[in-house]
Amino acid sequence: MRILITNDDGIAAPGIAVLAEAMSRISQVTIVAPAAEMSAVGHAITLSDPLRVTPYDKNNEFFGHAVRGTPADCVKLAYWVLLKDQPKPDLLISGINLGANTGINVIYSGTVSAATEGAILGIPSFAISLATFVKPDFRPAAAFAVQLAQTLMQRRLPKGVFLNVNVPAVPAEQIRGVRITRQGQANYMEEYSARQDPHRRSYYWLTGDKVEIEADERVDDRAILQNYISITPVHYDLTYYPLMQELETWGLTHA
Amino acid sequence: MRILITNDDGIAAPGIAVLAEAMSRISQVTIVAPAAEMSAVGHAITLSDPLRVTPYDKNNEFFGHAVRGTPADCVKLAYWVLLKDQPKPDLLISGINLGANTGINVIYSGTVSAATEGAILGIPSFAISLATFVKPDFRPAAAFAVQLAQTLMQRRLPKGVFLNVNVPAVPAEQIRGVRITRQGQANYMEEYSARQDPHRRSYYWLTGDKVEIEADERVDDRAILQNYISITPVHYDLTYYPLMQELETWGLTHA
Repeated sequence: MRILITNDDGIAAPGIAVLAEAMSRISQVTIVAPAAEMSAVGHAITLSDPLRVTPYDKNNEFFGHAVRGTPADCVKLAYWVLLKDQPKPDLLISGINLGANTGINVIYSGTVSAATEGAILGIPSFAISLATFVKPDFRPAAAFAVQLAQTLMQRRLPKGVFLNVNVPAVPAEQIRGVRITRQGQANYMEEYSARQDPHRRSYYWLTGDKVEIEADERVDDRAILQNYISITPVHYDLTYYPLMQELETWGLTHA
Repeated sequence: MRILITNDDGIAAPGIAVLAEAMSRISQVTIVAPAAEMSAVGHAITLSDPLRVTPYDKNNEFFGHAVRGTPADCVKLAYWVLLKDQPKPDLLISGINLGANTGINVIYSGTVSAATEGAILGIPSFAISLATFVKPDFRPAAAFAVQLAQTLMQRRLPKGVFLNVNVPAVPAEQIRGVRITRQGQANYMEEYSARQDPHRRSYYWLTGDKVEIEADERVDDRAILQNYISITPVHYDLTYYPLMQELETWGLTHA
């Protein structure tokens, strides 16, 4: 098995190291990840700047390719350039992200965008995130990633569909199981902290809290709160089909 | 009527000026747009850097607020800070973008991400793009935007749904009408041009062509090719519901 691994926290982040170490026990692993942290970059790709790739050493050993670009850039560049002469990867894994990618966060997530890019290229793909920002223990998530990778070698995802996995940040024995979920609608009550720089010019920092997580147990954020691993099947067709017929009746014409 | 206008080509781009001029005839207009060009930024938001806002003058008159951030940042900042003490906008329009936002491009599009952000905030929203990169005439698209804005004041979009509009780049009299479409699956056959900088270090530029536009007339790219204005209803729930039941049978457990 050949696995391509990337993330959005950057190639030096601990989450990708734990994932790569776990996966290398069952597979050949190629790591292509952003040189710098790239959180909340959404599904960005780099068009206006050149992409640079440098070998990244960890403990004086070659660990992977560091790309000065986004997670989506990493997947594209791995596929079209770095792995061009090799068989297509059997699997793409993006993570393990520090912090959940659930609810509205899914659309801002570089971690998820890398898995989207894998699905576009026809590679079975999943994103995996750990629902905490403090004192992360990535090992339960890595163990689950190994199980899911092995399962995906025997199953088939529909064209253009991948999995978005979120793991609760509790000791392994407190995880209550796996729940198949939908992307929640939990939004943010946002605030901008208004400040002044030393030159008396104002600037703003985004802050805010997630509000109103739906009670529905089949919602990603709710599953995490109840200590379940959440798996949401995700695709990138954003069409809202139920409205197509009604729009036909709006009488819009070329003015 | 109060309209919030943004884009991803930047506040100095000609497309937003033509749009703002047309809208100002029927509405009070507030322009909050990126200070610099932000194409293909996806649904990025700025977390790690402060956001700065400066007044932007065009022909020595105040035109709008230039934000050093992404299109999504602009919408958030307009809503939570700049327009905080005013009634919520009746409409958000993102555009007029230089170049189509159809097929796979929808997921990379800053223009579309701004309309997504509007929908998240409960503002009726649409993105509008002109399907060309050369010699753009934004006037037919602006005229259609006026018509659509007036229609949206009388209709209701479902919660979390907005419209992605693409206008063919032909003279107004050659536009054949309006077609309600779905997001196409047309992908790119990508290439990276490998080059060397003056210091003999290699770098890559992304390039590539769109391939295999579906024959289905109800696909966004196909409608444009046939000189129709394409309107795709779009939402941001990425869940692929048809797979949820099957995933339950995969027997995934917490390892």
